[in-house]
Amino acid sequence: MAALDDLVAEFARLPGIGRKTAQRLAFHLVQQPGERLTRLAQALVTVAEQVRPCGTCGNLAEAELCDLCRDPRRDGTLLCVVEDPAAVAVLERAGEFRGRYHVLGGRLDPLQGVGPEALRLDALVRRVEGGGVREVILATNPSMEGEVTATYVQQLLANRGVRITRLARGLPVGGDLEYVDGVTLAHALTARQDVG
Amino acid sequence: MAALDDLVAEFARLPGIGRKTAQRLAFHLVQQPGERLTRLAQALVTVAEQVRPCGTCGNLAEAELCDLCRDPRRDGTLLCVVEDPAAVAVLERAGEFRGRYHVLGGRLDPLQGVGPEALRLDALVRRVEGGGVREVILATNPSMEGEVTATYVQQLLANRGVRITRLARGLPVGGDLEYVDGVTLAHALTARQDVG
Repeated sequence: MAALDDLVAEFARLPGIGRKTAQRLAFHLVQQPGERLTRLAQALVTVAEQVRPCGTCGNLAEAELCDLCRDPRRDGTLLCVVEDPAAVAVLERAGEFRGRYHVLGGRLDPLQGVGPEALRLDALVRRVEGGGVREVILATNPSMEGEVTATYVQQLLANRGVRITRLARGLPVGGDLEYVDGVTLAHALTARQDVG
Repeated sequence: MAALDDLVAEFARLPGIGRKTAQRLAFHLVQQPGERLTRLAQALVTVAEQVRPCGTCGNLAEAELCDLCRDPRRDGTLLCVVEDPAAVAVLERAGEFRGRYHVLGGRLDPLQGVGPEALRLDALVRRVEGGGVREVILATNPSMEGEVTATYVQQLLANRGVRITRLARGLPVGGDLEYVDGVTLAHALTARQDVG
């Protein structure tokens, strides 16, 4: 069936969705009332039409600026550099950070052909040089590519009069030592803190 | 962001898709070119508009009859009774069965208020009484509700001059005894076969 096969193929292109899951989703939806499918379709079209990158930070926005850039209560002296809008959402859910963001739109990945020109680095330098930023917090992913990207940004912003920090590495809260990988454990040891 | 939140909510309504996965999918899609979203949307709309139950067997169809019911090479003396169209797809992929299907459209589940009247049982009886069917193979899921449904269909079709069989229960091929549950193991023991 062409219609169902097309839907399965589209689902299977989503990250983390294999062929079997795509089929399960398509079979589920096709047995729902038609308005379930059209509502999901409409939500997709609305996102395609209305969501775009924020003109300042590169986060997702439904207007020229994103909700966070328009919020006057955010602290503009703190700039948190992340890879993608998903990271902004994760950090916002954590609720600890009250500064502003800069979304790079990816990470350096030479093997995949992603070089510095593909990231929003010029815009980052302009924001820092524009003044008012006291500290840049590097919050790229704790992966190989994320580390490389953080190092690159660190060098790019060196000697521009801003403090540059990185998120602490260490044991995840609620974790069990047994399940912590060796590199994380080594970081946690190196960065051990005095407690008394 | 309302548009993105709507999309996350729609994804999260899909089976097996939790809040976090829904967010991951939405964040992924929103960063793709707009045509990726509209293509998925179009696939959904096409399915909603074109796919309906087959007038004979209840399988998914893009016309009055499904591809399998229109195929003259299928053996009409064998009728395989399944719960839903997904089961038809699974059996077709296995490639062993060359007969025809009857899709019940669910399983008996009194706790969820699903009684015999919700299933395509009248149509099944009509097909069997119409003649030409030699054997009905009960291929409901090996779950509690599937077993209850199979027993119900078995009693419904008793004394109508057709052979009634069920899929064999036993060890999954490629499995490891260690991971087989006790009930399956008990079935495999009871139904043990002579080999020499």
